[in-house]
Amino acid sequence: MTAPTLPVPDFAGRRDRLRAGLADAGVEALLLTAPASVRWTSGFSGSNGQVLLTASAERDRLITDERYEERAAVEAPGVTVVLTRDPLGIALASCGDGDRLGAEAAHLSWAEAADWSQRADDVGIEVRPTHGQVERLREVKDAAELARLARACQVTVDALAWLFDEVATVGRTERELATLLERRFVDLGADAVAFPSIVASGPNAAVPHHAPTDRPLRPGDLLTVDCGALVDGYHADCTRTVAIGHLDDHLAAVYAEVEAAQAAGRAAAVAGARAGDVDAACRDHLEARGYGDRFVHGTGHGVGLDIHEAPAVAKGSPATLAAATALTVEPGVYLPGVGGVRIEDTIVVTADGPPNILTTAPRALRVL
Amino acid sequence: MTAPTLPVPDFAGRRDRLRAGLADAGVEALLLTAPASVRWTSGFSGSNGQVLLTASAERDRLITDERYEERAAVEAPGVTVVLTRDPLGIALASCGDGDRLGAEAAHLSWAEAADWSQRADDVGIEVRPTHGQVERLREVKDAAELARLARACQVTVDALAWLFDEVATVGRTERELATLLERRFVDLGADAVAFPSIVASGPNAAVPHHAPTDRPLRPGDLLTVDCGALVDGYHADCTRTVAIGHLDDHLAAVYAEVEAAQAAGRAAAVAGARAGDVDAACRDHLEARGYGDRFVHGTGHGVGLDIHEAPAVAKGSPATLAAATALTVEPGVYLPGVGGVRIEDTIVVTADGPPNILTTAPRALRVL
Repeated sequence: MTAPTLPVPDFAGRRDRLRAGLADAGVEALLLTAPASVRWTSGFSGSNGQVLLTASAERDRLITDERYEERAAVEAPGVTVVLTRDPLGIALASCGDGDRLGAEAAHLSWAEAADWSQRADDVGIEVRPTHGQVERLREVKDAAELARLARACQVTVDALAWLFDEVATVGRTERELATLLERRFVDLGADAVAFPSIVASGPNAAVPHHAPTDRPLRPGDLLTVDCGALVDGYHADCTRTVAIGHLDDHLAAVYAEVEAAQAAGRAAAVAGARAGDVDAACRDHLEARGYGDRFVHGTGHGVGLDIHEAPAVAKGSPATLAAATALTVEPGVYLPGVGGVRIEDTIVVTADGPPNILTTAPRALRVL
Repeated sequence: MTAPTLPVPDFAGRRDRLRAGLADAGVEALLLTAPASVRWTSGFSGSNGQVLLTASAERDRLITDERYEERAAVEAPGVTVVLTRDPLGIALASCGDGDRLGAEAAHLSWAEAADWSQRADDVGIEVRPTHGQVERLREVKDAAELARLARACQVTVDALAWLFDEVATVGRTERELATLLERRFVDLGADAVAFPSIVASGPNAAVPHHAPTDRPLRPGDLLTVDCGALVDGYHADCTRTVAIGHLDDHLAAVYAEVEAAQAAGRAAAVAGARAGDVDAACRDHLEARGYGDRFVHGTGHGVGLDIHEAPAVAKGSPATLAAATALTVEPGVYLPGVGGVRIEDTIVVTADGPPNILTTAPRALRVL
């Protein structure tokens, strides 16, 4: 649920910006099927929804089924709702002979595409694949989105502080930590978790996407917690690594290099830079210290209505960063059998300076 | 995590059964991409995985990336793991000239299908869409799956009993109930929730897929709770409707009709029946009582590694039920502005008798 103080998104404005790109996409109409596309353009969050855009804003439609009649009215009051199990039928009826109907190629299955194409062909309409029409617009967040991201990140930071201050002690298991952390998210106002929390201790911290186990924390462990709260559809993403009891010199040195690499990545995230430059800043630092082959994943990703969205932040990622693009910067070093360090922030690119860091949890090495 | 007493699934046997159907599907190899298909055939549950099947079991491959190296080794010890970001490349290299490589048409995007087809064509291989190869096998559960479903349902029933015995009192909000219920799932051994819980009170119970709000329970409310625990990937699904304080005669009569309709639906779920027969049994009862137009959704769905899977249980659903098919039976009556009643069980079809009901919570009207 949206807390009262969050600004109301301008769904109609978003639809108009998307509409303005229909001609360039070579289509007269667009039938959106990706849940994030539907939510971004209408506010509707049910599990079955489509949004139909044509040249005329008055003919914008949110299509869902009877189960969601009331939710659609509440969440999407600004758009006409059609209740049906046949969204394509509505779309075809809104098209003229010879029209081209765009479909989101990354979010329609091969089977659906074949069915849609056949049915459209029967009535003289062409279904055309479109690529990233909504995703590209979503890279740059508006004020309503930034407010939601900021709230999700604040909940995440507050819960992490509580976890490290009061919960993460020798003997507690990874699973206990994950469960208690996720409850704290909800207590602090989150709607849910953005993704299943990664809580990795000791040698388990060498596994980037470790699922929490019953392993108890032990003195000398590194503990990596990668987590995020979900607020009104927007995902926070934050990782911190702390030491339990004490830390040997080798791991402390690794920590310092990841911390420096992450700072370099954040510093590179300026308007006009390429997403690949952010990756290069992290990767170059770790490669120069001999950890290049231990940094086994990309540096980050866009974040918003999806936990992973455009732009990708990996080697050679071509996207140009613009002001108000939200992304993660999360380099890590993983030492099989020993442990690992990852430090991650959710940041927002600014027009003319360093990025805003939404996940303000301390990054300096903390020994619990 | 799997508790020690759950039987180990026979992943190799499942792959062999799937392999036996390759010729009928018109392909020499199959590259599985649906998360449930990958998990069902290998045990792997990471967010990026594919399974490649060819004629020879020795050449079965689980394909994932470096992030999941350790998880793949733990979860899928019986299959050779390949770490790469290019699963299609591995599949094409395993095919001979002129081979046909099957892809899951319902689980590959239109964009991926176009890319795969192009790349395969370049090396003389054809990518063919396959439909439901894994889903049809998954309709009938094996012993390992039934044990997991049973455990998930037991956790769900125990948590619901606790909710109604100790938590659901006048003044508590829908959101509080949902949060406390979901915590109870985890405390009772669930890995997570199977889906976001529906907690709908008073007029909100007229909304089949209502999201919990801050509305407090009031005397005279109907309270519908639709929820499920997740255990080692398997989803429970159970709905109960109870009365708060007292219930007026009209709503009590509605409750009795839904209860009778649900019993009729369960009774129709015998081996050899059509899934549509189960829907008809519920629907005919409610239509005869004048509630046909208030039963606005299908009667149920298969349930297992996905919360909604084959067979569909709706009007005219053609699937034939076999022993060990798991499905839900969940008729409801919804009265806008007033309230609603839904009663749902997860059941398993037996060889020669009534179904096993996994969600054993009492169905008789309970007034709290």
